[in-house]
Amino acid sequence: MLTIADTQFDSRLFTGTGKFANGQLMQDSLKASGSQLVTMAMKRVDLANQTDDIVKPLLDMGAKLLPNTSGARDAEEAIFAARLAREALGTRWLKLEIHPDPRYLMPDPIETLKAAEALVEEGFIVLPYMHADPVLAKRLEEVGCAAVMPLGAPIGSNQGLLTQEFIRIIVEQSNVPVVVDAGIGAPSDASLAMELGADAVLVNTAIAVAQDPVAMAKAFAMAVDAGRAAYLAGLGAVSNQASATSPLTGFLD
Amino acid sequence: MLTIADTQFDSRLFTGTGKFANGQLMQDSLKASGSQLVTMAMKRVDLANQTDDIVKPLLDMGAKLLPNTSGARDAEEAIFAARLAREALGTRWLKLEIHPDPRYLMPDPIETLKAAEALVEEGFIVLPYMHADPVLAKRLEEVGCAAVMPLGAPIGSNQGLLTQEFIRIIVEQSNVPVVVDAGIGAPSDASLAMELGADAVLVNTAIAVAQDPVAMAKAFAMAVDAGRAAYLAGLGAVSNQASATSPLTGFLD
Amino acid sequence: MLTIADTQFDSRLFTGTGKFANGQLMQDSLKASGSQLVTMAMKRVDLANQTDDIVKPLLDMGAKLLPNTSGARDAEEAIFAARLAREALGTRWLKLEIHPDPRYLMPDPIETLKAAEALVEEGFIVLPYMHADPVLAKRLEEVGCAAVMPLGAPIGSNQGLLTQEFIRIIVEQSNVPVVVDAGIGAPSDASLAMELGADAVLVNTAIAVAQDPVAMAKAFAMAVDAGRAAYLAGLGAVSNQASATSPLTGFLD
Amino acid sequence: MLTIADTQFDSRLFTGTGKFANGQLMQDSLKASGSQLVTMAMKRVDLANQTDDIVKPLLDMGAKLLPNTSGARDAEEAIFAARLAREALGTRWLKLEIHPDPRYLMPDPIETLKAAEALVEEGFIVLPYMHADPVLAKRLEEVGCAAVMPLGAPIGSNQGLLTQEFIRIIVEQSNVPVVVDAGIGAPSDASLAMELGADAVLVNTAIAVAQDPVAMAKAFAMAVDAGRAAYLAGLGAVSNQASATSPLTGFLD
Repeated sequence: MLTIADTQFDSRLFTGTGKFANGQLMQDSLKASGSQLVTMAMKRVDLANQTDDIVKPLLDMGAKLLPNTSGARDAEEAIFAARLAREALGTRWLKLEIHPDPRYLMPDPIETLKAAEALVEEGFIVLPYMHADPVLAKRLEEVGCAAVMPLGAPIGSNQGLLTQEFIRIIVEQSNVPVVVDAGIGAPSDASLAMELGADAVLVNTAIAVAQDPVAMAKAFAMAVDAGRAAYLAGLGAVSNQASATSPLTGFLD
Repeated sequence: MLTIADTQFDSRLFTGTGKFANGQLMQDSLKASGSQLVTMAMKRVDLANQTDDIVKPLLDMGAKLLPNTSGARDAEEAIFAARLAREALGTRWLKLEIHPDPRYLMPDPIETLKAAEALVEEGFIVLPYMHADPVLAKRLEEVGCAAVMPLGAPIGSNQGLLTQEFIRIIVEQSNVPVVVDAGIGAPSDASLAMELGADAVLVNTAIAVAQDPVAMAKAFAMAVDAGRAAYLAGLGAVSNQASATSPLTGFLD
Repeated sequence: MLTIADTQFDSRLFTGTGKFANGQLMQDSLKASGSQLVTMAMKRVDLANQTDDIVKPLLDMGAKLLPNTSGARDAEEAIFAARLAREALGTRWLKLEIHPDPRYLMPDPIETLKAAEALVEEGFIVLPYMHADPVLAKRLEEVGCAAVMPLGAPIGSNQGLLTQEFIRIIVEQSNVPVVVDAGIGAPSDASLAMELGADAVLVNTAIAVAQDPVAMAKAFAMAVDAGRAAYLAGLGAVSNQASATSPLTGFLD
Repeated sequence: MLTIADTQFDSRLFTGTGKFANGQLMQDSLKASGSQLVTMAMKRVDLANQTDDIVKPLLDMGAKLLPNTSGARDAEEAIFAARLAREALGTRWLKLEIHPDPRYLMPDPIETLKAAEALVEEGFIVLPYMHADPVLAKRLEEVGCAAVMPLGAPIGSNQGLLTQEFIRIIVEQSNVPVVVDAGIGAPSDASLAMELGADAVLVNTAIAVAQDPVAMAKAFAMAVDAGRAAYLAGLGAVSNQASATSPLTGFLD
């Protein structure tokens, strides 16, 4: 079972609330995913009202809320958003996202570390979104982040696990859970991330923009379980020669 | 549900009997896989004896036998092996495998087509192992093969879906089921094959050589279901730009 | 120096005449490429007239003509085209191309082998276009082909060396020159093919559709030389760990 | 022609002095590479003596020295090493390298930015080694770095351009030259980096550990020129369909 900070999760598939065609589809998809941790942008939430259209159904289905600071361009904005989130939603959990560039939404390593340090000191449980940078992952771990969230590819691009080799290094070196976030476009990508030893994946776009988001959510849930099971079962070595599965003596010898 | 020739399959994960450390582990693994079609080399079977150590447990678990002609170096040898198999095991089903080269076990397109044509005429239900060659796939379909089995990578190499683009073309053009065979090294590879629209995959080495083959068999079963579900659910497009899942207006504006 | 059949080539970059915006650009580009073997479709040549717009300039620049049977859908059509080419152009050299499928233009292994055998017997110097199929490569070599021309990706797709692992096997096993043909989209692809040990590459689309075909032709010429030189110089091993190029003792110890 | 800070370079292949079997081979290889900028670790240089075995031959061949801070584990150590280098070698040029992890030698984004800012203020011409992190690249540009040096793969691994998509983004966004450094294992990798629009590449291990380093140095020089020429000539689009280079009307119609 996966433990992050003080909480245990049966499901290693984390999800998000963006890009769904409507609220009902979002609810149905997230329910189908079995996800127990769901991220949402503060800007999308009606902060004055706990019965918000997004928040209420999530709480009803038993999911833990993971407000994120998407839209923050520096540490100051992110800290502001984090405090808003805590007050409005009553949770210390936070997905820290700082991306000054609107085109590729790549995270800022400097501001992210600065904000992470400050927010951990304020008592937040911080899960930072980051490039697949092994040294930064150690730095974020050292300032007290509860997990690290390296990207597979730019947010929403569905390009898959472009950072595979660096994810492998991060997993090898990390003492906190590694959650692969962003870029995962298909269940096979999620499965691969888990086979590499990631502790969980966060998938949003690939579910939300599928032709049938509910069915896709289920597909991702299975793929995450498959990848985790394969990691635990110990994958065999890759070879650049063939190796017969059947005896090769000729039949007519 | 998948139909090949006259038979329906609930499971789209086909398996094989090679390389397991012992018979009990093989049985337990195949059971865990849920596989309903299991291939075995004729050379490994005690042909005079239906209660053979390999065959008996497979029949007991309700799996359909798919004898293969592994070791055959040309059409003549393959046809000989096929007839032996039919007589000994009482099945018309056949995985046709002809590989003259002992190092990479790559299939022979010419001899495979020749043998396939002859065996279909003799009443066999022929599933030919082949390179991921779209034109050959059509040729094999035209002579009456019940399915085609293009490879992902050399047999037993665990290198994954090196032939992805060609599998995609074969799936687009085929009127018979496409079963990706050979090279699949991890559940993520199996999932990817299914996402591309393959009808089934055949996995042997990656299960047999795992540290825990029974657990790995289950992992593959889940991954195949995940990939199939994703294919049906309609994957979203891949983009080389990011696309925000959350609104991007600044917080302190 | 590369020898195919009775002819020596200084340049390992072969080219083609298709898709250029106009004849002058084609001539300038082929001249810039330094190519000594140039393929052209029989249909594009004015067969009655040796001073054809395409043929004449090629002969003037000293290139050897390599007529191809593009458009042929089976062995019979290819043999017919081959004889036409020999008569019209006075050359026994032939690039054998048989692709029944108009969408992906993938070559037909069965008809190609059949036509190759017949044409070799008629005295042609046959260079067959083929899938990257190691067993077929050996078959074509055995019937007397002067070289084999495995594809990197579908013709004109610029997708690069999708078949890398299979090209590697073909090179390892072949006793005739291996010319990688089709799919090469950038000089880096050509260089990679040569690094794998290919004897030459054939590039057409990537030059013809470049913004500046003449400059691109030169770029390919350099890349082919670079890849060949690297192959001869012996590439170092790939590692999945870092290895310091500089001493790592700390400065302030 | 490439300009970095106040200096123009004819050659876009930068090199290093590590891992060569002996000094003579190093000199011959670097000469063959045509490189005009050569990096060396401060620890390897006899700081008291300008006629050092490494430095003297480099100056004789007209190469600009680029001392690096390899071995530095934080900004403080790097700044110390930088000052040593300036004093000993009389150059303000510096390759800034900070990698606290001895296994993968991945660079530290936080310490690198801090040291870069300080060293620029002290008058150094700073070329920072960095992960292929687009936001960090902008930050380093903003503090006054003369170029950025994103990695392709871990140092010395020869794994090639694993970070291709991120290099593409960095090139698109950068206002200073982009020099791809680390991981380049073959001329095709160098060519690809240049095709993506990189301004130069730095290659050391792949040359030094080749069977014939002098020949490999020449191969890299050609590949870099090829890739640059291709970038300027404008590569054609990649398609996932074939596109005939020759007319497809049947011959026997």
